[in-house]
Amino acid sequence: MKKVFVAGIGITKFGKHPDKTFRDLAVEAAMKAIGDANISPRDIEELYVGNFAQGMFEGQTHLAPTIYGDLGIRSNIKGVRLENACASSGFALYEAYRAVKAGYADVVLVLGVEKMTAQKTPVVTKILATAGDAIYELPTGITFPGYFALMATAYFQKYGGSREDLAEIAIKNHYHASNNPYAQYPKKITIEDYFKAPMIAEPLGLYDCSPISDGAAAAVLISEDYAKKSSKDGFVEIIGGGASVTNLALSERAEDITFLEPVAVSSEKAFKEAKIDKDDVDVIEVHDCFTIAEALHLESLGFYKRGEGIKAAANGETYYDGKLPVNTDGGLKAKGHPVGATGVGMAVEIVKQLRGEAYNQVEGAEIGLMSNMGGSGASNVVLIFRRV
Amino acid sequence: MKKVFVAGIGITKFGKHPDKTFRDLAVEAAMKAIGDANISPRDIEELYVGNFAQGMFEGQTHLAPTIYGDLGIRSNIKGVRLENACASSGFALYEAYRAVKAGYADVVLVLGVEKMTAQKTPVVTKILATAGDAIYELPTGITFPGYFALMATAYFQKYGGSREDLAEIAIKNHYHASNNPYAQYPKKITIEDYFKAPMIAEPLGLYDCSPISDGAAAAVLISEDYAKKSSKDGFVEIIGGGASVTNLALSERAEDITFLEPVAVSSEKAFKEAKIDKDDVDVIEVHDCFTIAEALHLESLGFYKRGEGIKAAANGETYYDGKLPVNTDGGLKAKGHPVGATGVGMAVEIVKQLRGEAYNQVEGAEIGLMSNMGGSGASNVVLIFRRV
Repeated sequence: MKKVFVAGIGITKFGKHPDKTFRDLAVEAAMKAIGDANISPRDIEELYVGNFAQGMFEGQTHLAPTIYGDLGIRSNIKGVRLENACASSGFALYEAYRAVKAGYADVVLVLGVEKMTAQKTPVVTKILATAGDAIYELPTGITFPGYFALMATAYFQKYGGSREDLAEIAIKNHYHASNNPYAQYPKKITIEDYFKAPMIAEPLGLYDCSPISDGAAAAVLISEDYAKKSSKDGFVEIIGGGASVTNLALSERAEDITFLEPVAVSSEKAFKEAKIDKDDVDVIEVHDCFTIAEALHLESLGFYKRGEGIKAAANGETYYDGKLPVNTDGGLKAKGHPVGATGVGMAVEIVKQLRGEAYNQVEGAEIGLMSNMGGSGASNVVLIFRRV
Repeated sequence: MKKVFVAGIGITKFGKHPDKTFRDLAVEAAMKAIGDANISPRDIEELYVGNFAQGMFEGQTHLAPTIYGDLGIRSNIKGVRLENACASSGFALYEAYRAVKAGYADVVLVLGVEKMTAQKTPVVTKILATAGDAIYELPTGITFPGYFALMATAYFQKYGGSREDLAEIAIKNHYHASNNPYAQYPKKITIEDYFKAPMIAEPLGLYDCSPISDGAAAAVLISEDYAKKSSKDGFVEIIGGGASVTNLALSERAEDITFLEPVAVSSEKAFKEAKIDKDDVDVIEVHDCFTIAEALHLESLGFYKRGEGIKAAANGETYYDGKLPVNTDGGLKAKGHPVGATGVGMAVEIVKQLRGEAYNQVEGAEIGLMSNMGGSGASNVVLIFRRV
């Protein structure tokens, strides 16, 4: 197995882009990553596209050839789209990592993209809901705020915690986003803002929910052989990964819906492969589609004991200058959540941190971790990165 | 790199299944493959799902967890959905092959599935059209019969050939399907039937077009290490593969739209990896979404010279007892074309042929090839199989 390096990263501003299609966003992010890696589009050997539902958002499927053409690659490389709901591009990145690791290719472009605001909010909600169980759950009228409201309620009942704790997670992520010009909502919020905002699905209010976003993120992965020939330096290595799925329906999970089993399984695999301990990790990005999801992640990843993750932000521990910096780019909550772009977007922030180029730079960061979730936690991928 | 065997196959009848969802079809095919491989669902280590557009057909995305749950796998394996239009499950099979070959897993389930008839024909046509270029081509009103009509017209102008030749391809595939109880249209047709049928997109009539179908197909891939421990024998080995994409828009292809460049590139890679020659191949399955596509495939794969593939059926050469048996199960034309299931469906037929279990058995078949295309030829995967 070969070592795998991230040679280049690129990201668009997340937010509303009424004047751009997903193709424009994809090309912008991809060309930034290609430029950053100091390669040409024609050097790319394989293309993995993570996307959730562009067929429903903009009437376009078959995305790998679409993006291949727009980038002018012109050498009949392999390209394919992967979909696992909001973890689509995390899985794309994991597959790409495995492809380079196995020696199938030396230069791989991974792209995550979603253009969601072409549809109105009720339609977007309906499209997102297709990531839940269409036979056994959606007919009840549940949508994703509802799924995570159930999880938050179960958490409060089991461990305590309150909306004040959730508010602190939102306030922390908005604080991080306030320094990130690529974030959809680069503004601080106060606890008053949080409590004045409308309720979405009890106990989750507006500021507990990630927004509807457009955006794209890209990464160029290269093999160690290729890296030796490159004129570029300052690589980040992917040192471990894991991915797993469980039952789609929340009602068919293990008894406890406050624990994200695929997150635990994926991270166990990733840590084993990376041969490091949790204590070695300097910065993490987790899938905070809703504030409660950040707390569930911290516990399912094993960074916090059960029932304690929800206090991490309130205690100041997950701020970029805290003991475990989490979502230093603002997270899905404030950076935005163009679903297919989110996984690679997390990788972009981790790579920036490990290169010392982040907006909220974690001092001396050497090891970073990302955890990208699909649906209400039915799929998850974890990747661990190290500064070389 | 490890040797990769197909240990089990399963397929549903292709056709209309008004009483079944895609999940029922997926489970039926998967459980057949699992039973055929003599394993339990809990032995599966990775799951690759090929599907084109179940989100649009039945409001369900995030298919890997869905199918994982329905199969009762229960061990948090990796699962992901791949999409490359009508080549979705061919690409899933190729990725799964690479995963086993690299040693990432010993037992992988690959599933292709599509339930299309839940929507009416005009809606299905619109959904299928999303596999074409939504910005530069679809606004003209073109749909897939139109794309292939352009290719047929260009072929006739460049090389000659006529609707009589296309009719012979349809007649041959319906003849093969007439012996296949899993085919959507297991009936022979005559040249009179062909010419009496309505025109769809000049020069393609009804019998030039594959139908709208529901169906699923599955395969269990295992490593050679696992095969040694298995009580089963009679494996088929995957000895080579290749996959490639080109520009999505037909208008942006190389000058000549009668040549499928990704087919040529994929097959060149596959033959190189398999270390065999074209003459060694005993039976092939190609993507005849339209009759003309079978001819274009035979030429782009290099089995026929340019301008001669269209005569192969008329000359009797591509019948199961001819010199190059093609689409011995009836092909997409008569077996049916549930788009996401088609690629693995091809593999099922090749495996049956190499095991000596086919309905139209090619005597002494030892090596088989499949070529699964997406869109109007923007993506393609070729895999080569050998009887062990």
